[in-house]
Amino acid sequence: MLRRNVESRDAQTRQMQDAVSNVEKHFGELCQVFAGYVRKKARLRDKADLLVNEINAYASTETPNLKHGLKNFAEEFAKLQDYRQAEVERLEAKVVEPLKTYGTIVKMKRAETELQRATMDATRTSRHLEETIDNFEKQKIKDIKNIFSEFITIEMLFHGKALEVYTAAYQNMQKIDEEEDLEIFRSSLYPPDYSTRLDIVRANSKSPLQRSLSAKCISGTAQQIPTSRIRKDQQDDDEEDDDELEVTEEEN
Amino acid sequence: MLRRNVESRDAQTRQMQDAVSNVEKHFGELCQVFAGYVRKKARLRDKADLLVNEINAYASTETPNLKHGLKNFAEEFAKLQDYRQAEVERLEAKVVEPLKTYGTIVKMKRAETELQRATMDATRTSRHLEETIDNFEKQKIKDIKNIFSEFITIEMLFHGKALEVYTAAYQNMQKIDEEEDLEIFRSSLYPPDYSTRLDIVRANSKSPLQRSLSAKCISGTAQQIPTSRIRKDQQDDDEEDDDELEVTEEEN
Repeated sequence: MLRRNVESRDAQTRQMQDAVSNVEKHFGELCQVFAGYVRKKARLRDKADLLVNEINAYASTETPNLKHGLKNFAEEFAKLQDYRQAEVERLEAKVVEPLKTYGTIVKMKRAETELQRATMDATRTSRHLEETIDNFEKQKIKDIKNIFSEFITIEMLFHGKALEVYTAAYQNMQKIDEEEDLEIFRSSLYPPDYSTRLDIVRANSKSPLQRSLSAKCISGTAQQIPTSRIRKDQQDDDEEDDDELEVTEEEN
Repeated sequence: MLRRNVESRDAQTRQMQDAVSNVEKHFGELCQVFAGYVRKKARLRDKADLLVNEINAYASTETPNLKHGLKNFAEEFAKLQDYRQAEVERLEAKVVEPLKTYGTIVKMKRAETELQRATMDATRTSRHLEETIDNFEKQKIKDIKNIFSEFITIEMLFHGKALEVYTAAYQNMQKIDEEEDLEIFRSSLYPPDYSTRLDIVRANSKSPLQRSLSAKCISGTAQQIPTSRIRKDQQDDDEEDDDELEVTEEEN
């Protein structure tokens, strides 16, 4: 009877250790990949912030309707980046952090089983182990469901806001009155008082105008933007050396 | 009269050159930042692909309901990445490329004005210049409206699909039967035939189980994920050296 209990206890201890090791391994890896995913979202937000600045800079040089339309778009797009920022923070708090805290839980459970095994008699230990395993498993299923549900909810919230913002932005973009802008532009072209009118147009554009096209965006060089899907053998190569030139245009 | 025309022509030539330089500068910069934005989307898709692999790897070690639920989520999430891939390709074709082709247009217009100025008589040149400027301006407003509208449409299409996919994924996640999984797990724990049952559970989990938590995702180290918004003075520093460790888990 005692031998039977000892065998049972040892088997259960092994099973508990396997379960704990498995959670330790996979939750750790999930945590890493989710964290990487969140970082990429943050990088996308950074790029979008630069885009807002550049659109505003360009808008400042344009005729009234186009200027207004572009500034309006930049504003809406900036608002979307605030939602993206909230999304990034929520994903960190509700997905990455809970997965990270499993490291502590796992350490505690491991100590618990080892302590029980070392100090208690066979029968009591066996029952205790069953309870420990059971609680651990129960909590784990609950937690994984919860973490993934949070992930989905946070993502949905952002995508919903994005649809909302873009719908308004699209309508505003369509409303830009091309004809009126063209009239304004034309009226600045013709004599008699063209030099004064020229000044009006010039005042609208940034000076000095320098040529600052990067090689990447000059037509004819046909440089390929490396956005193709990564292959399996490149998955751990995450360097982003394709961003050698950045726009540092100030918003105005 | 001739002197007046010459003055007018010179002023118009200057204005044309300014307009062309302005477009060259800003379209080039917009092209760069949009290209960077699209690259970040592609990087996000890469991370999401890794996440799909890791969720599948973890699912394979789990009890039936949780396994099914996680595999289902991975499948939906993978589908979303295909939409993201389509989004990336469309943004390249409809936003980045048209902005890039402006390099060619600008070069042609510059040659056109210089040729007109050098070879034609003052009156004809002046009228020609007006037409050239007018067409250029007209086309530019039309193009910029079109490029931004394409951008918004492509983004909306993706966000709409994302909402659709996540809605289904959320419902499936909620449906995971925790109690049944717990019963299955328990039935594998208890004697008399626990060693056989143990084998069933073990067959479900990957072997050998090794500990592979990265330092980043071990609780207690409290390492901060650098996702905070970039400051103005860091905008051109786009290195992503925070991804030193990647998961290369194969899908199974």
